[in-house]
Amino acid sequence: MISFLWVNNEVGSILPVAELCGIAEGSGIPSHVDAVAALGQVPINFAATRASALSVSAHKIGGPVGVGALVLGRHTIADSLLHGGSQQRARSGSQNVAGAVAFAAALDLALGEGRAPDPERISRLARLRDRLIAGVRDIDPSAVLRGSSDEHARVPGNAHFTFPGCQGDSLVFLLDAAGVSVSVGSACQAGVAEISHVLMAMGLSEAEAAGALRFTLGPDTRETEVDSLLAALPAAIDRARSAGLN
Amino acid sequence: MISFLWVNNEVGSILPVAELCGIAEGSGIPSHVDAVAALGQVPINFAATRASALSVSAHKIGGPVGVGALVLGRHTIADSLLHGGSQQRARSGSQNVAGAVAFAAALDLALGEGRAPDPERISRLARLRDRLIAGVRDIDPSAVLRGSSDEHARVPGNAHFTFPGCQGDSLVFLLDAAGVSVSVGSACQAGVAEISHVLMAMGLSEAEAAGALRFTLGPDTRETEVDSLLAALPAAIDRARSAGLN
Repeated sequence: MISFLWVNNEVGSILPVAELCGIAEGSGIPSHVDAVAALGQVPINFAATRASALSVSAHKIGGPVGVGALVLGRHTIADSLLHGGSQQRARSGSQNVAGAVAFAAALDLALGEGRAPDPERISRLARLRDRLIAGVRDIDPSAVLRGSSDEHARVPGNAHFTFPGCQGDSLVFLLDAAGVSVSVGSACQAGVAEISHVLMAMGLSEAEAAGALRFTLGPDTRETEVDSLLAALPAAIDRARSAGLN
Repeated sequence: MISFLWVNNEVGSILPVAELCGIAEGSGIPSHVDAVAALGQVPINFAATRASALSVSAHKIGGPVGVGALVLGRHTIADSLLHGGSQQRARSGSQNVAGAVAFAAALDLALGEGRAPDPERISRLARLRDRLIAGVRDIDPSAVLRGSSDEHARVPGNAHFTFPGCQGDSLVFLLDAAGVSVSVGSACQAGVAEISHVLMAMGLSEAEAAGALRFTLGPDTRETEVDSLLAALPAAIDRARSAGLN
């Protein structure tokens, strides 16, 4: 089986999912698409991907943490991880019903009747992101945007930079103190002082990758919040950079 | 490994858990106690059982469906069913945090500071159950109480009968129409027309076991609700019995 991301959860790049699934299908290999970071950011049409399986998670669109969905193709055969019980003829144990209902409500809000992200909302998000990217470049011309700069190959809600000479962890701490929530990478790395394997795979040196900072925008992000970030960023970069020199 | 119930989920019998765990420990066999039906009904002291593992579920004490806990002894080695992720150094995926917090709140309400069911609440529940049992026997002297009649070997919230010549399913339907919620057996059997394996293991014939009805009382059950059940029961038994004769 081949398993890959629809959208990279650190740098926001959109992968050519249908093409990858087509290659897998042509070789008789089942494919699983992790669409967690794609949900609410790009239109997801499971049938069109020709994937064997696809997973999504509620917390990426404002639903509760701890609820997700695995979508299986009609001809996909999957073994259960949990056995026993056979409640209502099929399932094992009692499911998180309230969570599932909340996920459905979050999907309705995020995707609406078109069952896809609203193009106007996506444009608004992309404009905010571009304002953020332009602002960061003004403040620190040495900052490098990672991931694609082609807007068709990057989700609207992600801007990812490396700041030379800074520790991303220090920037997260300093910006948090200024009331701005950002991330060095993925939740998988939270609390673990490790260089991003994504950035290493993209060919960055450890020193470059250490300065990584991920900015994520959502449907509730306002222009004034981007302005607050840009106002707090120069001092944070200065302090993080001078700390790096010590 | 030996896995057994602390309290039988159909007939409410309390098993001699510490004795069973002691036998297992003496033979070097790990033991798992399913304490789902015991939670809130009997005091649970994990260390005193000497079990290797014990599981409980939130929905039995008014917490949300879909949240449970597996308690492991300090020296118990357990393999994870889910791998990958390594979020926060240890876990796979994003957990149902709201559910876990709600379970903790439900435990506080059910067990209080003593971390055990309140003896007064248990006595009140047992008195209600005994009123229910006496009432059922008055209405139908042929009804047979299943499980133990020793109050130290039966949880306070359970009364389980078989009604000769009746289908339990019919009684559930007829009582439901009268506003009373009862059960033929366990949730594992919901929607499945099968004779209870518990009653068969207790030596009942299929015909006897078919007339099973489980009455469950909780901390919110009121005397008037027991009276409503007893008022609705005679007509339900008559109709179920005459249906059985056709």
